[in-house]
Amino acid sequence: MSAHVLTLNAGSSSLKFGVFALAEGPEPRAAGLIERIGGSPALHLRDAAGTAIAPGEDPAGATDQAGAVGLVLRLVARHFPDGEIAAVGHRVVHGGPDHAGPARLSDDVLAGLERFVPFAPLHQPHNLAGARAARAAFPEALQVACFDTSFHRNHPWVNDTFALPRRFYDRGVRRYGFHGLSYDYIAGELARSAPLLHSGRVVVAHLGNGASMCGLLGGRSVASTMGFSALDGLPMGTRCGQLDPGVVLYLMDQEGMTTAELADLLYLESGLKGLSGMANDMRALEASEAPAAREAIDYFTFRIRRELGGLAAALGGLDALVFCGGIGENSRLVRAEVCRGMQWLGIELDRARNEANARIISADLSRTHVMVIPTDEEIVIARAAAAMLGEGAA
Amino acid sequence: MSAHVLTLNAGSSSLKFGVFALAEGPEPRAAGLIERIGGSPALHLRDAAGTAIAPGEDPAGATDQAGAVGLVLRLVARHFPDGEIAAVGHRVVHGGPDHAGPARLSDDVLAGLERFVPFAPLHQPHNLAGARAARAAFPEALQVACFDTSFHRNHPWVNDTFALPRRFYDRGVRRYGFHGLSYDYIAGELARSAPLLHSGRVVVAHLGNGASMCGLLGGRSVASTMGFSALDGLPMGTRCGQLDPGVVLYLMDQEGMTTAELADLLYLESGLKGLSGMANDMRALEASEAPAAREAIDYFTFRIRRELGGLAAALGGLDALVFCGGIGENSRLVRAEVCRGMQWLGIELDRARNEANARIISADLSRTHVMVIPTDEEIVIARAAAAMLGEGAA
Repeated sequence: MSAHVLTLNAGSSSLKFGVFALAEGPEPRAAGLIERIGGSPALHLRDAAGTAIAPGEDPAGATDQAGAVGLVLRLVARHFPDGEIAAVGHRVVHGGPDHAGPARLSDDVLAGLERFVPFAPLHQPHNLAGARAARAAFPEALQVACFDTSFHRNHPWVNDTFALPRRFYDRGVRRYGFHGLSYDYIAGELARSAPLLHSGRVVVAHLGNGASMCGLLGGRSVASTMGFSALDGLPMGTRCGQLDPGVVLYLMDQEGMTTAELADLLYLESGLKGLSGMANDMRALEASEAPAAREAIDYFTFRIRRELGGLAAALGGLDALVFCGGIGENSRLVRAEVCRGMQWLGIELDRARNEANARIISADLSRTHVMVIPTDEEIVIARAAAAMLGEGAA
Repeated sequence: MSAHVLTLNAGSSSLKFGVFALAEGPEPRAAGLIERIGGSPALHLRDAAGTAIAPGEDPAGATDQAGAVGLVLRLVARHFPDGEIAAVGHRVVHGGPDHAGPARLSDDVLAGLERFVPFAPLHQPHNLAGARAARAAFPEALQVACFDTSFHRNHPWVNDTFALPRRFYDRGVRRYGFHGLSYDYIAGELARSAPLLHSGRVVVAHLGNGASMCGLLGGRSVASTMGFSALDGLPMGTRCGQLDPGVVLYLMDQEGMTTAELADLLYLESGLKGLSGMANDMRALEASEAPAAREAIDYFTFRIRRELGGLAAALGGLDALVFCGGIGENSRLVRAEVCRGMQWLGIELDRARNEANARIISADLSRTHVMVIPTDEEIVIARAAAAMLGEGAA
């Protein structure tokens, strides 16, 4: 038996997982997705090369996160009979003000994380349901929580607070920032492949169905476009991004909306979907002839440019811009539009490199480097769990 | 009798006014303030040189805006028996989506402006109460409304919308921007005194008890830090500025706050006052030894820097930064802190010039010019009213 690490990323109706034998390299031996949990569940599994493999298990029992984790347990037993799951690493969206790194998921820690459910009502409850299910299914394994907020916990105070009376900060109303596992991975890749840039002023644009940007100084986060919730900053697939708080008050007072209706509107009906009136998927918008689809892309890329300027101010300038996430890694149009007219910030794109999805897409003489680095949140979780395993064993 | 213009700026418990004989120059013949309307009213009056003069009228009757306007009527009759008020120019905070310039205050226009009371509940009702009172008190005069929103009405669509479903934009949920009368004045001063800068990329920081920033291209507004309400963007004396909409939902759902309580919190208890725990007045904060006072200033200046970067992105770079408003014109500390570490944007402050409140405070070799230009919203209103008078007479 060799020690393996299982990573879990539990959502409202999905469970992503990866099985890692880190002694053999950073690629997962298997990666899977259980979707439509609670509906008619489906299971997808692929091997280290990314090739789909027949799971050989019926997903029908995945009626909740416990059922889904049970399914993962059976998959591991069937496909990796030589592998012992020594640690389970969990993605947990919110670590609150105190968790500046991964945490062993003790009863106390788990109870503490419950307190942040109101801070991230659409994500945290599902993350914790997955964690509880995994503790029951893998009772011998070390359970480790990795937080999307941890990477940002050392922000300067001016980037950590809103201009509200102090008592709100004291009880947790802060600019947490998210997507920290992705930024952590990108910072590591920069340190490995471009140490001089890593030591400088870098903005990372994590552009997926969720989207945010992070300012890095010497590889450490000093500012994020996201704040207290997963709503703020950039517009996203279905989320509004930056919004005047007066609009929220207006919609309640004048249009009689409830907070539940507003949460639906701002989390699920806004962003690219709301502006285009059609889709939250960038590929669909790019393929569309509709003017509203193009306008939604224009708004998205404009807000990225504006936040890029704001983050450059927080960093005192810019040495590199890194794109990652599904849109950042794949949309040539979005990258080109973000870099359009940004010569004032030293950015000059190389069109052919951008079309080729190259790792470096800026021109040779561009003062600011522009890069595309595929992100990998799972390996960050797996490494954190393995590291804690090593510490515990030492 | 010579034609005079009266300007009125009606607030919740105050009425500012100016009496202009524009044929004689841009300075008001008299400027006054009635404060504590509805309480124990007080009246202040000064002449063209800014010297206080005894008004000779008892302000006790100013129990509402009508009473205050009646007091202005008596003051004009007493002090300017040779002057006929041919036009009254009103500051009206909200002109809605359509008013891209001053408007003659007909019954129809006034009725239309009532529709925007919900967009600016703390300002618009008082502005319109003043307008109605003036129409009754000066029935022969041309009544002209000048809007804080007009100057921004030609923003590109990406700067005019939020990422909400389109129907919200269609019914008026837009990024209006405010302080337009001040920006209009500054743009005019730039055109007069620095035509090359005026034709370029300029950010104006209007920093008073209310505060916002505006990006100008060729003297026209293309972006503002303020949005739908007077809350968004920069933190202010008592207003929060930029705030994650998720915080509003959280405070309602989890802390049980009502929209009225939230409006009180975000308009009246936040910003510099909330962060410092003591004062909304920059002079008091600068004079204080309390760490929280200094932190409030740090937050204020940091947010200005961040918005400056964002507006530079909207402009495609920066040729000049202009400070105005009570804080912008007087606080050496705030200007120095805003410009600190902004060499990446071509900004280099001249310390002695900044200390002297000079008009140009950047160093000779600074690539980006930094200026201090005292703003004057009243003269913009007076000129607009006089121009409309001229058109009507032609």
